[in-house]
Amino acid sequence: MGTTQLQTVPEPKYWHLKTVIGEALDSEFAVGEILPNERDLAARFGVARATLRQALEQLELEGRLQRRRGVGTTVAPPRVGVAVEGSRAHSWPGARGDVWQPAGCERGSAPAAVADLLDSEEPVHVVRRTRVSHGRPVAAELLYVPVSSVAELSSIDGPSGPGRARAVLRELQRLGLEGEDRSVELGSASADDARELDRLPGAPVLVVTTRFFAEGRTAAVAVATYRADTCRLTFGDTPHVEIDHRQERRAS
Amino acid sequence: MGTTQLQTVPEPKYWHLKTVIGEALDSEFAVGEILPNERDLAARFGVARATLRQALEQLELEGRLQRRRGVGTTVAPPRVGVAVEGSRAHSWPGARGDVWQPAGCERGSAPAAVADLLDSEEPVHVVRRTRVSHGRPVAAELLYVPVSSVAELSSIDGPSGPGRARAVLRELQRLGLEGEDRSVELGSASADDARELDRLPGAPVLVVTTRFFAEGRTAAVAVATYRADTCRLTFGDTPHVEIDHRQERRAS
Repeated sequence: MGTTQLQTVPEPKYWHLKTVIGEALDSEFAVGEILPNERDLAARFGVARATLRQALEQLELEGRLQRRRGVGTTVAPPRVGVAVEGSRAHSWPGARGDVWQPAGCERGSAPAAVADLLDSEEPVHVVRRTRVSHGRPVAAELLYVPVSSVAELSSIDGPSGPGRARAVLRELQRLGLEGEDRSVELGSASADDARELDRLPGAPVLVVTTRFFAEGRTAAVAVATYRADTCRLTFGDTPHVEIDHRQERRAS
Repeated sequence: MGTTQLQTVPEPKYWHLKTVIGEALDSEFAVGEILPNERDLAARFGVARATLRQALEQLELEGRLQRRRGVGTTVAPPRVGVAVEGSRAHSWPGARGDVWQPAGCERGSAPAAVADLLDSEEPVHVVRRTRVSHGRPVAAELLYVPVSSVAELSSIDGPSGPGRARAVLRELQRLGLEGEDRSVELGSASADDARELDRLPGAPVLVVTTRFFAEGRTAAVAVATYRADTCRLTFGDTPHVEIDHRQERRAS
């Protein structure tokens, strides 16, 4: 949707090239198809490699192309609307209907930025969770829960792993949730993120940070990393806002 | 926040370099300071230019560095929390307390993706608005209002310009707003966006698309483009979620 502005100023060369390649993607390529290499593409469009690369980067940012580990550059499917927040009341991670799957749990210390949000340096349970949509991983999450937030946690479920993660989430439900807030910002995939999301390290991601408030303080902080190439985050009553110029253009 | 994961796998070379440069930014550079050129930096850290460039790109994605038009690469100030949605009731663009400033209005046709959301091919008023935070432009918006949504609009305010924009917004207030939904996705700045946001064309932006529902249909669609380097979009009761590892690290 970065291209929907009224055009009133001349555009740089690679921008025009981006439009031309975008039209070629619509007419000549199928979703998932691998693009020719940069040298061949530069020759075909009569541009320098640097210009071509700029155009390809723009198309990747806009979700038209994907760079895939060990595969190359492929034509991306339309972005999927992923509901971050619906209209239903606030609820704890792991509550009924939660779409996230617990993957593991470790005990450790929170990174400085998270400790700041928690306003505490105490040890935390770090619950790892993943979110799958249409059979593909779309997001990875680390949920930081100060040990004092789940003080009643028994050691019966083992020190780590998915069982432990479920136990921590179960204990959280006992607290009265008073509210939550969220922020969304741009980030880049760490090596761990990249592996979980089937992306290359450094790929752009959308980072959603959620603070959960209970008993007058921040009782947990979730840092979720969504694939920026395939996801459109949705908020509000209608989770599937369809914004797909590709389909539109194909149909016309 | 893309770097807050538990590190369990080896990281690529530029990732380590990114961390090293990040520490140098904290200890040796002030916000706004211009970085040495790539050749000097590559020599200082003993890496190839390509590796250096990858590390700088990551730091830009994470909001630590900014590429500025005609200036070069500078050390970025901490990201500013920008409230996209508070806890107050839904309201029309231009309602009391709205932080956006109308900049102009033209009549035209909606891009295919917007027409799809409006479920209509009819002509639209395109209201341009800008949002300023701490004296700097942080977002540009195009609000698409089908002519039938504001059928009572008089021609007294002139055919275009800020006065016309205000008139369209005023007419919108007359409709009973039934709800709205939003999506957030990654995009790249068009030449127009870039000029308004004081960025380079193609820079990553966060695109927030809002549908406004009234009288049983989509009565208007807003496409807002936020600077991804300087903004953290906030949702919920507490607009200023402070996540600033830089300050944390400086303080420690």
